[in-house]
Amino acid sequence: MINDDNVFAFLGIAIGVSIAALFYARYLYGSVKKEKIHMHLLENLSSFIHEGAMAFLSREYKIIILFIIVVAVLLASLGLIPSLQHADGVGPGAAFCFLIGTLCSGVAGFCGMLTATKANARVTQAAHDNGMPKALRITFSGGSVLGLCVVGFGLLGLSVLFCGFYFFTKDMYLAAHVISGYSLGCSFIALFARVGGGIYTKAADVGADLVGKVESGIPEDDPRNPAVIADNVGDNVGDIAGMGSDLCESYVGAIVSAISLGISYMAVQGEHMGISSLMFPILIAALGILSSIFAQVFVRAKEWDNPAKALNIATYVSTLVVLVGSLLLSYFVFNDVYPFYSILSGLVVGVFIGRIAEYYTSDSYRHVKEIAEQSLTGHATNIISGFSIGMQSTALTILLLAAGIAASYLFFGMYGIALGAVGMLSTAGITVSVDAYGPIADNAGGIAEMSNMEEHVREITDHLDSVGNTTAAVGKGFCIGSAAFTALAMIVAYSQLAHLDVISLLEPGVIIALLIGAMLPFFFTSLTIKSVGKAANQMIEEVRRQFKADPGIMKGTSKPDYAQCVDISTQAALKEMILPGLIAVISPIATGILLGTKGLGGLLIGALMSAIMLAVFMANSGGAWDNAKKYIESGACGGKGSEAHKAAITGDTVGDPFKDTAGPAMDILIKLMSVISLILAPVLLEMTPLLDFLFH
Amino acid sequence: MINDDNVFAFLGIAIGVSIAALFYARYLYGSVKKEKIHMHLLENLSSFIHEGAMAFLSREYKIIILFIIVVAVLLASLGLIPSLQHADGVGPGAAFCFLIGTLCSGVAGFCGMLTATKANARVTQAAHDNGMPKALRITFSGGSVLGLCVVGFGLLGLSVLFCGFYFFTKDMYLAAHVISGYSLGCSFIALFARVGGGIYTKAADVGADLVGKVESGIPEDDPRNPAVIADNVGDNVGDIAGMGSDLCESYVGAIVSAISLGISYMAVQGEHMGISSLMFPILIAALGILSSIFAQVFVRAKEWDNPAKALNIATYVSTLVVLVGSLLLSYFVFNDVYPFYSILSGLVVGVFIGRIAEYYTSDSYRHVKEIAEQSLTGHATNIISGFSIGMQSTALTILLLAAGIAASYLFFGMYGIALGAVGMLSTAGITVSVDAYGPIADNAGGIAEMSNMEEHVREITDHLDSVGNTTAAVGKGFCIGSAAFTALAMIVAYSQLAHLDVISLLEPGVIIALLIGAMLPFFFTSLTIKSVGKAANQMIEEVRRQFKADPGIMKGTSKPDYAQCVDISTQAALKEMILPGLIAVISPIATGILLGTKGLGGLLIGALMSAIMLAVFMANSGGAWDNAKKYIESGACGGKGSEAHKAAITGDTVGDPFKDTAGPAMDILIKLMSVISLILAPVLLEMTPLLDFLFH
Repeated sequence: MINDDNVFAFLGIAIGVSIAALFYARYLYGSVKKEKIHMHLLENLSSFIHEGAMAFLSREYKIIILFIIVVAVLLASLGLIPSLQHADGVGPGAAFCFLIGTLCSGVAGFCGMLTATKANARVTQAAHDNGMPKALRITFSGGSVLGLCVVGFGLLGLSVLFCGFYFFTKDMYLAAHVISGYSLGCSFIALFARVGGGIYTKAADVGADLVGKVESGIPEDDPRNPAVIADNVGDNVGDIAGMGSDLCESYVGAIVSAISLGISYMAVQGEHMGISSLMFPILIAALGILSSIFAQVFVRAKEWDNPAKALNIATYVSTLVVLVGSLLLSYFVFNDVYPFYSILSGLVVGVFIGRIAEYYTSDSYRHVKEIAEQSLTGHATNIISGFSIGMQSTALTILLLAAGIAASYLFFGMYGIALGAVGMLSTAGITVSVDAYGPIADNAGGIAEMSNMEEHVREITDHLDSVGNTTAAVGKGFCIGSAAFTALAMIVAYSQLAHLDVISLLEPGVIIALLIGAMLPFFFTSLTIKSVGKAANQMIEEVRRQFKADPGIMKGTSKPDYAQCVDISTQAALKEMILPGLIAVISPIATGILLGTKGLGGLLIGALMSAIMLAVFMANSGGAWDNAKKYIESGACGGKGSEAHKAAITGDTVGDPFKDTAGPAMDILIKLMSVISLILAPVLLEMTPLLDFLFH
Repeated sequence: MINDDNVFAFLGIAIGVSIAALFYARYLYGSVKKEKIHMHLLENLSSFIHEGAMAFLSREYKIIILFIIVVAVLLASLGLIPSLQHADGVGPGAAFCFLIGTLCSGVAGFCGMLTATKANARVTQAAHDNGMPKALRITFSGGSVLGLCVVGFGLLGLSVLFCGFYFFTKDMYLAAHVISGYSLGCSFIALFARVGGGIYTKAADVGADLVGKVESGIPEDDPRNPAVIADNVGDNVGDIAGMGSDLCESYVGAIVSAISLGISYMAVQGEHMGISSLMFPILIAALGILSSIFAQVFVRAKEWDNPAKALNIATYVSTLVVLVGSLLLSYFVFNDVYPFYSILSGLVVGVFIGRIAEYYTSDSYRHVKEIAEQSLTGHATNIISGFSIGMQSTALTILLLAAGIAASYLFFGMYGIALGAVGMLSTAGITVSVDAYGPIADNAGGIAEMSNMEEHVREITDHLDSVGNTTAAVGKGFCIGSAAFTALAMIVAYSQLAHLDVISLLEPGVIIALLIGAMLPFFFTSLTIKSVGKAANQMIEEVRRQFKADPGIMKGTSKPDYAQCVDISTQAALKEMILPGLIAVISPIATGILLGTKGLGGLLIGALMSAIMLAVFMANSGGAWDNAKKYIESGACGGKGSEAHKAAITGDTVGDPFKDTAGPAMDILIKLMSVISLILAPVLLEMTPLLDFLFH
């Protein structure tokens, strides 16, 4: 049992584990960096990518800082309004937490990307000098830095803040409420990193592909293509920094909503449960971090010649440790096995949701083959069949998710749903590591291609890369599932904070809010997809301009102006992320003010429903199109250069913004809207909705 | 005021007006048929289309009859269960109503299609002999038969049944409940007509286009294409019979849910409102029929040289008559202006929702031009931009719909929402007429093309056709809006029948049901789209086989085997409509049995949310792609035969199943699920949900 006497000891453990993760990440970073790059061209290419990525991140953070200041001032000043002085979620304390949240999430993304852009050329070099085992080890170490930073910084900030507020105020309610601001901070960074990064990466990718592969007939990652560096930078800003901040947000959000629901659980169970239900999710998270470190050390000692096996072992070891540990913790804290079952439900959903994504997007199964066959009759049938497979994949995914929600609820009530989310995300340390492995391998392959490496080097990087494609599909499923679970837990936490016992579907205000909420993800998708289109067009024009201005580029005699293309992607992404961002922020606030707490609840649920469906549909359609193209390139249905291949490229290009921009942005949209509502709840309680007179 | 003394007089008026509409339709049919076709080729082509359409309808009805018998026996026998003897919605009476419903809806579709397939060649003949005024008059008369039959048969069956049950039982509650069966009958026909018709028409269209235009380079409606007759048959079974049954279902569903909600309104207001609130929607519907007849006679006397003007005048006159009439009726029945305001809200939504669709799908506005420009960079950018415009269009549409729902509720409560739906559909007589005008004009153009008519004839038919394209987009918006309004009214009626005061979003059973409900439209879409793909592939293979087997076809020396293609479309459509149909029927029943009445409510709302979004998105994406292609064909962005044109054809082909199969099927899905629930409600009240022990 946890009580007031030993709570700080336990918090100390959580803080200690987080710091250990960060130290281990620092060690891995050092181990990556100490590898030498002795080929000049590799170093050059790597530094182009590194500089492009860092330039984007620093310019992005500069823009975000303005927004951060506005939000922090707003949050702080809300607490000065007399009637809101007892609303713990706002005020200077919450604003402080918010700032720390943006800092932790921002620094985690920065460290991960720094390492990834250092690792890429070193992987190519190692593949050249030493072969698979070393190349794989560097790739995995590079990815692990992001994984460990996400969970390390995420839990460190949270537990230090909780510890501090509890220590100084001795008020666990206040401490539990005020850290919502921390979650908002993480969401805020995630919004810009995911949306901006998603637009960046796909603008560069689509632009590079359309002019390079389609118009000029040069292969992917050909150094003559001016957009090729921007494309590689995009992998880092989108799939490293963006993905990391996305899962950081889910991770922190799940813990915060579990803490928040722990309060109501306490109220129901009576005070004798004391602080246990608030501390339990933090301890599970700490356990998860330990399991991630352990899994990495474990794999480190094993054979390093089979990438798929290494990654799988890491995942399974980590999951196993969490399972055993959480069973023990469940008995220790609650003297009960049911919290463990809730955690187990979340973990199981996390594992299988990725498998479903794999089933629909891997060419080992019939769906991708079907798309490839439909490419034989042209572009349109390729699009139609990819579209329909993505939609079909929602069925199994949603049934699994619904089963997981039902199970975690049945075992431990509403608090159980939040525990399910925490359980699902407890292995985030290793999931993010495996996820971040992909873009590093991709970059390494790109660098090998650009520097005209020998066949055996490319074989190694290709092998690394192909494993990365599977992990990317699985990882995307995990992102969606965890976002859905987390957002749901947050919405439940919101309803508790807003003192809502029911939000009835039969109230017209709720129906309207549901409708508008369900519409938002569609509108948001149209905005982000359109942004990619616009930015890609600019990129295409720039590449065409360069080809025209200097015919030496195509001949390979003169170097294209990479920096100009990087700049176009950067500017476009930064400009285009503002509007979607504002919509995500303003819509819950406006709905809350106009329709009140119930209407806001309806908006959140409506948005959650649509967003999950669209995210699953777009991720799986995009993945299936991508692999159908690769399947054709491997020789099926006419192979490379055939008409079917051209049709498959169309599908892949359509799928790119689906799976890497709009789809992942859905995760952010629902989590951000939910966490804003969580913070808004006490404020809304103190005011009368503007349209109240209409609907009551 | 309406009371027990004069209620039969008012019902008599409704019956009389319905019969008048049918007589007028018979007169119009005669006026179309008496036109002579004196060119042998025209007569031949017309009879091919006529026979193909009739063959499909009769084979479709033969399959449906099996299902009808099963449902009727089920409905009747449910009433024999002792505990359900007081559940008025089931039992032999409801089964009888169900049978009459299938009959009325089926006969309406049959009459409309019969006339349309007689009118098409006569329009071409008139364009050849007499010019625009007469051609337009025949087209419009042909379409009006469907419009008048839909509202005439729809209201006739309903009011006769209501009148009969009330007369013999003197129990207005029973009469009000039992006619839900009638609505189910209409839904049932609509399900098969819309889904089967949608698959038929697009399998033929996509198949004909891909082999004809893309592979062989022959123009649309070229008589050498073996699939060309099937394509023209498809317009009739999809856009005439399918669309008619869709709106018939909305029309009847709106009235039935208003009657059902009228009961609860009565209960709140006290018995002194007597039968008024049940009769009011019937009288509004009768008024709508009168307005439609009046508008047609009115236009008949006007100039007939401007199709767009003629159709607009008809619509506006009809709307104006309904407005004035319903204001008077509102005062007469309720001595109150508020019911009128609710009706007005629905009417306004109906008018503007079509305008929004026009804004996003007409080449007069920037969106379609944008798609055309994006076609310059290839197939993928065309798809992406069409996709994003469809999604964007959900925003305005949903805001309008939400405003309409809010307004109609604010003026007259939940009953007001149903009145809004009735108001929106009151002008269905003229809306369906205008809608059915499109495919007749399209067929006339196709026949002119196939028979190599002179330029001036094709100019006339093209002009008729282009107006039809706009009305089709407007009509689709109207179908979606009215389906959403009607389904919502039905869900509200369902909740009253199931004695649900709240369906809380915070109950896990409801959340799960919402998730599954929101998933169903995506799954349903994937099924119908896949069916089109499969059927289109069969069609492509058949056309290729014929071209190969007889090279004379392409030379124009021998005639292709049209009948074989018609047969393929027919068989595929009939086979493929079964599975989606079963899902629509089984999912509410299974959810009701497993999760109970609240869960079923959640399922309905979840499905409603997703279905509206997808329907709007797919209709507008499809329409925009279609018109972007036409815009390019008119000379923009490189014109016919350019690369941009090829990309635009891809978009159009993708959009075809979106806008004509999957999109319209959404309307049916939500209405059918809602009406099944309406009937199921009293049954569910008598049983314990199987999973009740889990969630309570």
